[in-house]
Amino acid sequence: MNHTAIDAMVDRVDDALLEYFRDKDHTCHPLDRAMEYSVLAGGKRMRPLLVLATCQELGGSLEDALPFSIALEFLHTYSLIHDDLPMMDNDDLRRGKPTNHKVFGEANAILAGDALHTEAFKVLAHAPHPNLTDAARIKIIEEFANACGRRGMVAGQVMDMEGSRRDLDLATLQLLHERKTGALILFSVRLGAYLAGANEAQMKAVTKFGRALGLLFQVVDDLLDIEGDAAQLGKTAGKDLDQNKATFPKLLGVVEARNFADGLLSDALEALTLCAPKEKLLETLAMFVRNREH
Amino acid sequence: MNHTAIDAMVDRVDDALLEYFRDKDHTCHPLDRAMEYSVLAGGKRMRPLLVLATCQELGGSLEDALPFSIALEFLHTYSLIHDDLPMMDNDDLRRGKPTNHKVFGEANAILAGDALHTEAFKVLAHAPHPNLTDAARIKIIEEFANACGRRGMVAGQVMDMEGSRRDLDLATLQLLHERKTGALILFSVRLGAYLAGANEAQMKAVTKFGRALGLLFQVVDDLLDIEGDAAQLGKTAGKDLDQNKATFPKLLGVVEARNFADGLLSDALEALTLCAPKEKLLETLAMFVRNREH
Repeated sequence: MNHTAIDAMVDRVDDALLEYFRDKDHTCHPLDRAMEYSVLAGGKRMRPLLVLATCQELGGSLEDALPFSIALEFLHTYSLIHDDLPMMDNDDLRRGKPTNHKVFGEANAILAGDALHTEAFKVLAHAPHPNLTDAARIKIIEEFANACGRRGMVAGQVMDMEGSRRDLDLATLQLLHERKTGALILFSVRLGAYLAGANEAQMKAVTKFGRALGLLFQVVDDLLDIEGDAAQLGKTAGKDLDQNKATFPKLLGVVEARNFADGLLSDALEALTLCAPKEKLLETLAMFVRNREH
Repeated sequence: MNHTAIDAMVDRVDDALLEYFRDKDHTCHPLDRAMEYSVLAGGKRMRPLLVLATCQELGGSLEDALPFSIALEFLHTYSLIHDDLPMMDNDDLRRGKPTNHKVFGEANAILAGDALHTEAFKVLAHAPHPNLTDAARIKIIEEFANACGRRGMVAGQVMDMEGSRRDLDLATLQLLHERKTGALILFSVRLGAYLAGANEAQMKAVTKFGRALGLLFQVVDDLLDIEGDAAQLGKTAGKDLDQNKATFPKLLGVVEARNFADGLLSDALEALTLCAPKEKLLETLAMFVRNREH
């Protein structure tokens, strides 16, 4: 039943994204096509889902949260497009499809990412909402900027590139991932809570949940990478940089990394008991993050 | 006297930019350095100046406008860093110094641009102001996103790249530049007006001024390019793409392009008479844009 509720949410997010690109302007055709291509290329829609699920769990309206939630997908997609570029991760495929720069060229890919980046802020400033105060909206926009920028996601990406060239200790690795992926996951749940008009105790619980979930996401990613590598029996050469990259299993050992993940899941679920969720949507998402296989 | 007032404003903007990067975090050292490098590499600070001058002309406080004005410089700098990249304009020098990617590498340059892009929104959400309503601040942020994004600056950049490959008519060339540079120049003066608490008539006049000034900026740029090329007597090979690029002098002829620029300057100055400027700061800036030599 919860899975069905979540699948329905994914459909709503996909529809909202599709709808966003209905606004056509023939003079912007090449840019629109490049933006649309990556946004509509699929994906789990994890960040919008977290916005919607948190909002609904706390008694807010999914309808009202939907137009805000796509900001997270725009921001996430911009970061993927830029990450995939030759001078960054140099990936030719993303979700089984050619990466943006492979289809539209590198210049258009940079610009499509840039436009999606701007669009994310536009959405948060523009999306209508019946109860959200202007003061709360401004706070949301500022938190979003903090999560994305020079002390958030982008800082994490730079630390990641630096980290490929030298050893990192566990605390630094954790800070790196708190910034690179954790900050936006945390923001997603906090946005859902703001939109539900959460009280302070709920906001605190949701924040605890989001922090644990963000880190869990990365630890599981690292574990899946190792299992993927093992499954491929060294068939692929891999990237030199990736070989040197610090990961949780490398620093902790695989068994300890799994325990770490389980502990983070417990932390996340415990936090949920504090904000009195109405359904089990966030619990389902947290379990999914822990147990996913790709 | 006005020149002195404007020089003093440039100093204030430079100080505010320098101050912004005082906030150090040793884990973000490489990113901060790359951002700082390009922001502090000089430049006319035209956009922040337009914010400050408009605000002051309309009776607002320069002190209160200053922390907002640097958002424009962050946005402008991000666009320059990305523009200079090899897959875009491929420039090695900017204002006589090596471009960002020449110093920090392409990956860091993309990320420094990305972080400055975010930072611009952060500034608009965060900068303190004694009289600005939350509703007006949200309107400012949305207008800014419109000026920067998929129907603004980035759209203009994509049109510009497309335009290098085919003929453009005058109307399309004008739309291209309204987006590529005009939108942010217009936003700069409107931001200054918002911060001064301008009334509707003043806002309308300032908008007319900003539109004329934005286009003037580009027409003069095109004229300077031609004069620059003539002065160099073909010593440089130039870029193939640039040779095909539509410009106002190419479409109108040099004499007519000069008349067009003079007409735009008149439009701009006429608009100023409608918003009762206290000093001649905006007039001085408009004259500077028309008569600058580089």
